[in-house]
Amino acid sequence: MTTGSDPDLGRVCEIIIFGGTGDLALRKLIPALYFLELDRRLPADTRIIGVSRREMKSDAYRKLVAERAREHLPTQDFREDEWKRFLKKFSFCRVDAEVAADYRGLSRHLGPAGDGVRVFYLATLPELYAEICQYMDDAGLVNAETRVVLEKPLGHDLQSALAINEAVGQVFGEDQVFRIDHYLGKETVQNLMALRFGNAIFEPLWRAAHIDYVEISVTETIGVEDRGDYYDSSGAMRDMVQNHLLQLLCLTAMEPPVRFEQHAVRNEKMKVLQALRPIRGEAVKTRTVRGQYTASVVSGREVPAYYFEEGVAPESNTETFVALRLEVDSWRWSGTPFYLRTGKRLARRFSEIVVHFKPVAHQIFDPDGGVHAGNRLVIQLQPEEGIELMLNTKIPGKGMALRPVPLDLNLAHAFKRRRWDAYERLLLDVLRGDSTLFMRKDEIETAWAWIDPIIEGWQAHYQQPKLYKAGTMGPDRANELIERDGFRWHENLVQ
Amino acid sequence: MTTGSDPDLGRVCEIIIFGGTGDLALRKLIPALYFLELDRRLPADTRIIGVSRREMKSDAYRKLVAERAREHLPTQDFREDEWKRFLKKFSFCRVDAEVAADYRGLSRHLGPAGDGVRVFYLATLPELYAEICQYMDDAGLVNAETRVVLEKPLGHDLQSALAINEAVGQVFGEDQVFRIDHYLGKETVQNLMALRFGNAIFEPLWRAAHIDYVEISVTETIGVEDRGDYYDSSGAMRDMVQNHLLQLLCLTAMEPPVRFEQHAVRNEKMKVLQALRPIRGEAVKTRTVRGQYTASVVSGREVPAYYFEEGVAPESNTETFVALRLEVDSWRWSGTPFYLRTGKRLARRFSEIVVHFKPVAHQIFDPDGGVHAGNRLVIQLQPEEGIELMLNTKIPGKGMALRPVPLDLNLAHAFKRRRWDAYERLLLDVLRGDSTLFMRKDEIETAWAWIDPIIEGWQAHYQQPKLYKAGTMGPDRANELIERDGFRWHENLVQ
Repeated sequence: MTTGSDPDLGRVCEIIIFGGTGDLALRKLIPALYFLELDRRLPADTRIIGVSRREMKSDAYRKLVAERAREHLPTQDFREDEWKRFLKKFSFCRVDAEVAADYRGLSRHLGPAGDGVRVFYLATLPELYAEICQYMDDAGLVNAETRVVLEKPLGHDLQSALAINEAVGQVFGEDQVFRIDHYLGKETVQNLMALRFGNAIFEPLWRAAHIDYVEISVTETIGVEDRGDYYDSSGAMRDMVQNHLLQLLCLTAMEPPVRFEQHAVRNEKMKVLQALRPIRGEAVKTRTVRGQYTASVVSGREVPAYYFEEGVAPESNTETFVALRLEVDSWRWSGTPFYLRTGKRLARRFSEIVVHFKPVAHQIFDPDGGVHAGNRLVIQLQPEEGIELMLNTKIPGKGMALRPVPLDLNLAHAFKRRRWDAYERLLLDVLRGDSTLFMRKDEIETAWAWIDPIIEGWQAHYQQPKLYKAGTMGPDRANELIERDGFRWHENLVQ
Repeated sequence: MTTGSDPDLGRVCEIIIFGGTGDLALRKLIPALYFLELDRRLPADTRIIGVSRREMKSDAYRKLVAERAREHLPTQDFREDEWKRFLKKFSFCRVDAEVAADYRGLSRHLGPAGDGVRVFYLATLPELYAEICQYMDDAGLVNAETRVVLEKPLGHDLQSALAINEAVGQVFGEDQVFRIDHYLGKETVQNLMALRFGNAIFEPLWRAAHIDYVEISVTETIGVEDRGDYYDSSGAMRDMVQNHLLQLLCLTAMEPPVRFEQHAVRNEKMKVLQALRPIRGEAVKTRTVRGQYTASVVSGREVPAYYFEEGVAPESNTETFVALRLEVDSWRWSGTPFYLRTGKRLARRFSEIVVHFKPVAHQIFDPDGGVHAGNRLVIQLQPEEGIELMLNTKIPGKGMALRPVPLDLNLAHAFKRRRWDAYERLLLDVLRGDSTLFMRKDEIETAWAWIDPIIEGWQAHYQQPKLYKAGTMGPDRANELIERDGFRWHENLVQ
């Protein structure tokens, strides 16, 4: 590789981060850019411009970055000389996103656009996306080589999402818009696709005939933290299911795309969203579970009930937990339920996709050996990334008793390299103009079109979330939802 | 477990080893019995009687066992007190297998048969099996609880095998006869069955539609050692292919038995042998390769040509290497060739079954990532026992380049127990009367019926084996045999 540039990139000129003094920028985006610089994936002339309402000189911004972003770099990957060189790329420009005139200041700060790529990363409130895009355009900041990155949540229902997409679409062509879901940047999520489509042995098994059920869980132990205000108007369904969980579902359930390329992949994801059986009206009572956490003592520490959290209405009916039983109406999946689950203040923090294969059709070994568990493929995204295939093997010695043993795909061991962070991968894709791992306009809208009737159903038939004690795995109803079909959540399976 | 007996066993009384002063007894059988004793799997009153032509007192025999058998016990598993107790079980009885009167001496030595099991292990020349069985019967040594264990080779062609089986059958019922092939006692061979029939994910893939080819190799680095005499009248086909390799083929290719039980399993193995497409006449020239090693320098040591080995005829045309291309004419396997290979003085010593799955039907990832290798399941029996599944996974970082990574089924790690030796497992099965892992009369005969025409074909059309230098992987023709179909032996595959 030549020093100073990734040959795929062309000439990147500017990365402009709206919300440049915010948490996401300092904790995730700037560390990711540092690693790209360390790997010589950023062109030498790259500039990174932090933008926010705060009054600040570029020197002060570099100081802020040096202090705050550096905390989020693993010590073993920190190199003083690289870091100093990296900091030189930074400057700051004050812009109040809602004041058109400020964008002219940004325009002066940036100077005329070269032939390189200019990326605007909007790490701000989504309510501002429309305005920011419009003002950028008015100030002449946008040309064909300009790209914009939008963070979730994109709207809070179909109508608001349509409005944002339309406003952004006035300024940017769809191929310039990168709607990010950092779950798609995780190595194990991409490895799910590598497993499915790079190995001939999985595709014949990847269907209802061989799979009992699929489970997608994203659980958290934290509460709403300092986001009570936002969270209370949103809830777990909008905050997590509409984006992360449905995205993981799409990648798990999609048909093989003809190419691993943005149009083909996103077309196949769309087909999954379009095949989701709607959940409407009273069906929300049997096919969904809403929960809300109550006070408890977790690890010796008292934690408050959700409705006592700061920023939350005392009578709030917002859900902090959702479990869903989905059906994908397609030839491939007819008869295989998908269970999705997410929640706050749960017993453990993990994100995983578990594909539960059917048990053997007929057990030929000594019944004393016990019933053989069905095979399971566990794709874990958090807290560690890893892939595990549970196989039944013979217990050594006499007879033919079997026991499940995990085949671990130890990627860290197989590839002795630093693991990329999701943002690093996705930022590089933005710079290269590859939107395969980003959400297209119609995906967002179709997801909302499926989510909206559930939320409406709740308003009509299921206003009160089931309460669950903080530190548990959610309301009992979530177990009933899956056990009614004869299945269990992964953590409840006896090995 | 109660001390002093395995509840499955009933009361075992006597294990009589013909050839009790020979190599097999001292190196394999007695160490295996020691481990069974150590695990308290032998009834307390078990007696082990060494039998041979040699003139020897029981004390001297115990001394021989103490010296010679002990060498073959791993130091960490040796316990002085157990060993002393174990030695007390031994006695010796002089029997010239060809002298009827000597069996009456054995009868006196043993005393009247109790209600326990009496096992005769014939670790002698197979030419003696018929006579031994007859004389045992004449001396009143056989009743319904008597079992006889026969070592390979069972005959040198169909006719001689039929003769042995008939003679043995005059004295013993088929359920009393245990034809041993120690390969079937290996943990990984049994794990092959556990994988196939204890995991629903393999059965749908285990067929021609998903498998390109199957390779079964049993290679040795040693020459004929001190067996030149025997070997020269036998050759690799009779010595290895007719038994070990065809047995491994049967277990790999068989349909799921209805139960893991002696009749059901052996019926399915029989069906594989019956489905083998015959190789007759001139077909031996294209579907088989015969080889014979010539002199070379291996690891700095000169090794002689086969025809210079002691006991070998100077003009010998006996093969020390065989490679075969087999077809199993069944719905499951039509179109999937099986390649078998065995030989002496080869470059490496290994025994393995390699199932080569087809590559992906269509490659969706960046062609720059290279062609994805097909998945492979490698079942290794020697030098280490292990199971490995090669999967393509994503190389971490940008893009979507794949690389094969092995999923290891590390049994030693999964089960922190001492690994059983094949003889230990099989001897216990004999004591328990379970012949699932032993070869039935008709299996032996059907195997010979398939082997004989090949040997006849060689005599008519392929007398001269291809020469190969000691320390290589056999004659070039063995590569041509498989490469003609577009495939490669495992060790020639580029990763």
